[in-house]
Amino acid sequence: MAQRVLTPRAEDFPRWYQDVVAKAELAENGPVRGTMVIRPYGYAIWERMQREVDDRIKAAGAQNVAFPLFIPESYLTREAEHVEGFSPELAVVTHAGGKELDEPVVVRPTSETVFGEYMAKWIQGYRDLPLLLNQWANVVRWELRPRIFLRTTEFLWQEGHTAHATRADAHAYALRILHDVYRDFMVEVLGIPVLVGRKTARERFAGAVNTLTCEAMMGDGKALQMGTSHELGQNFARAFDMRYLDAEGTQQLAWTTSWGVSTRMVGGLIMSHGDDDGLRLPPRLAPVQVAVVVVRDDAECIERARAMAAELAAAGLRVELDDKVSMSFGRRATDSELKGVPVRVEVGPRDLAEGVVTVVRRDLGRDDPGRKVTVGVGEIARGALDSVAAAQTSLRAQAEKRTSAAIADVASLDDAVAAAASGFARLAWALVGDEGEDRLAAEGVTVRCLQRRDGTVPESADEPDLVAIVARAY
Amino acid sequence: MAQRVLTPRAEDFPRWYQDVVAKAELAENGPVRGTMVIRPYGYAIWERMQREVDDRIKAAGAQNVAFPLFIPESYLTREAEHVEGFSPELAVVTHAGGKELDEPVVVRPTSETVFGEYMAKWIQGYRDLPLLLNQWANVVRWELRPRIFLRTTEFLWQEGHTAHATRADAHAYALRILHDVYRDFMVEVLGIPVLVGRKTARERFAGAVNTLTCEAMMGDGKALQMGTSHELGQNFARAFDMRYLDAEGTQQLAWTTSWGVSTRMVGGLIMSHGDDDGLRLPPRLAPVQVAVVVVRDDAECIERARAMAAELAAAGLRVELDDKVSMSFGRRATDSELKGVPVRVEVGPRDLAEGVVTVVRRDLGRDDPGRKVTVGVGEIARGALDSVAAAQTSLRAQAEKRTSAAIADVASLDDAVAAAASGFARLAWALVGDEGEDRLAAEGVTVRCLQRRDGTVPESADEPDLVAIVARAY
Repeated sequence: MAQRVLTPRAEDFPRWYQDVVAKAELAENGPVRGTMVIRPYGYAIWERMQREVDDRIKAAGAQNVAFPLFIPESYLTREAEHVEGFSPELAVVTHAGGKELDEPVVVRPTSETVFGEYMAKWIQGYRDLPLLLNQWANVVRWELRPRIFLRTTEFLWQEGHTAHATRADAHAYALRILHDVYRDFMVEVLGIPVLVGRKTARERFAGAVNTLTCEAMMGDGKALQMGTSHELGQNFARAFDMRYLDAEGTQQLAWTTSWGVSTRMVGGLIMSHGDDDGLRLPPRLAPVQVAVVVVRDDAECIERARAMAAELAAAGLRVELDDKVSMSFGRRATDSELKGVPVRVEVGPRDLAEGVVTVVRRDLGRDDPGRKVTVGVGEIARGALDSVAAAQTSLRAQAEKRTSAAIADVASLDDAVAAAASGFARLAWALVGDEGEDRLAAEGVTVRCLQRRDGTVPESADEPDLVAIVARAY
Repeated sequence: MAQRVLTPRAEDFPRWYQDVVAKAELAENGPVRGTMVIRPYGYAIWERMQREVDDRIKAAGAQNVAFPLFIPESYLTREAEHVEGFSPELAVVTHAGGKELDEPVVVRPTSETVFGEYMAKWIQGYRDLPLLLNQWANVVRWELRPRIFLRTTEFLWQEGHTAHATRADAHAYALRILHDVYRDFMVEVLGIPVLVGRKTARERFAGAVNTLTCEAMMGDGKALQMGTSHELGQNFARAFDMRYLDAEGTQQLAWTTSWGVSTRMVGGLIMSHGDDDGLRLPPRLAPVQVAVVVVRDDAECIERARAMAAELAAAGLRVELDDKVSMSFGRRATDSELKGVPVRVEVGPRDLAEGVVTVVRRDLGRDDPGRKVTVGVGEIARGALDSVAAAQTSLRAQAEKRTSAAIADVASLDDAVAAAASGFARLAWALVGDEGEDRLAAEGVTVRCLQRRDGTVPESADEPDLVAIVARAY
């Protein structure tokens, strides 16, 4: 590309991020500070994320519900520890219907308390368990340093809330969500190789007894928490008097979990796969998998491109025909790169005369000989399907390579801090501990999660031979 | 059914409605007055509505976006006429992030103003038109007399906002949404025979130059406005300075439309098809189309029922296996009737011994000989598919018959008021006029829409020989 469209990542990563968000037309700032307007292309990406996550949530047996936006202020005082984490972030409605309210209502920062209240009512006996609920909703947490997709005053998310008869059931379900819903989606669809593990007591969600997390490495060496799944023990059940009659006729407190992912994942997607030309979307997620681009204003080209687009759509691909020939081809190609469309089929008169089209893969670098190939017009469906499949594999492999290279095994806190300047540091949890966490925190570094040596999730922070994954984080 | 589960409709229709909402576990009141908690079954119905409407919106070329929940108070003063309609209903956030805000923010009662602001920015030249946007969101209008699904302080809806180069384009698009999105969905999927027409100036949306509507007749003889599509002329474009450079290089004001349907449709569905045993869902909408019910605790029955459920699911049906044999069959059958599951396959030992199962259709009355049929186990897929298809046709036919019967052709305002006690009255619009509308209003009756004699939508209220459809309404 001749002209410089984006700030290069190496020059100023946050600026590059803002440039991509703006120029790929993903989102922009809303009129109230900290809010965002998600534009059609950004929303199409979020919609695809929603669909994929929702399918997995349903496969895990949870049902969707909708709880109200407004929560009475008094609800938030029931679970003291929980509220303490949120109160400085709350937005409060004091006036409505033309007058001052008797009791102010809070705009939900999460629906945890109201789920608790109603689930307690719906659960009577052991046959009502497990109760597996989920909600797709907007939530509000007033942000002082907002950043589009990553930290906004209002964001879109799903929050799952479940109740179980035993600790073991709740534990197994929290793990199931972590692995079968979140990790599976992030790795298989987003192509982002997340590290899964257990949060330390310091980093745990307020009120949880165990927080499980998916952590990804961004292009600038900082970690992003992509999703969390919490075991809440009986803390919430106690606060909301969520009891059930067991098979022996005894009242028992339920065991609960909660878990969520949000529009923050869009930010993670940008910072994981993006390059200096813009976004790069994994085909399984991409709203448009193949752009069929008419190179120039030529009736034959337009007609053939249209037929090809129809053929590719019939082959099951998500296709967009770009026949806006009043705009220069270069500008449209740049735009397609910016938006990270995985595969571009360029239909030009010279190629057509030879019975071929040019297929360009967005995942490969400008110097990669495999980036542009010519494909016979008769083989276009096969060629596009192959390119799409290859692009999915390659983007994930690139992210895996980058993430692996960004994990440094170290043997001291000082070395961990140094390594965290550019990625994850991995060291024995025994070398860190609570005190070590304080020292890391002073350097702006946190323990992202604890893992076993083989990368699996430990049952407790006290297991021997655990490693801590530490990093700077968003 | 032996026990009386619901208040009969004839005894107390509003009470029947509340009973159905509660006992079919659709929704309940939220903790803040006027809000609702949509339970899994109710939400599954809404999700199916969303999916069907969304598919049609996308087919009409509109793209989804997400605008923020919060709108600066100052935005709402730009379009004076618009605001006047909303101000007594607004919820206002005055405190956030632990302090009082410099400028209060309003919780969106609609996103019209913020769409206007951003669309004006995004539209530069004629090539940017039409700009076709839609949003699925929650909105808040403080309600003094809330009623679940029908009128709630917070509700879920979609709001479409589009901008066009010409009045003709805007007009055609508002009609396309009315017919191809709303009416098609309501008639073909919901099986509700809506009347489409044009609102009178009195009933028009504030700021619109033309409001088109879909009106349905409920089981109690009252009308429900199920969805509206508005032409806003250049009113909004003027308020938000939404201009484009035309092909001749001249600045022109755009022409806009807006349109929406909401969770209110769930209320319309209940009141359209429901009977004294509960909900009746049209199969194309139903989250569960066929319930395969094990009659009693018998290993053979359970195994065969499971196999049948799998077979029906493989045939493309949405199936639920009910093997909760610890609960009495009668109670489970009642529950299935309450929830309006279109087709029930009862698998019992006596039937199985004869190689058959009993297929029960929810759409047919208790005395209808076609309601319960026995089907050979080997023909169950064919039998269930046929029953599902027949139930869709029959529910729609019943609603059409009821609606037609509820339209009385009358020749005076007095007769119109009398007829509106139990349905729609149809009379010459020339007999009504502005003054007639006042007189009707005094009796609690409104003109729901104007139509041509053939039931089509007039181009203006001044067309000769129009009829007014009048009714009491929700």
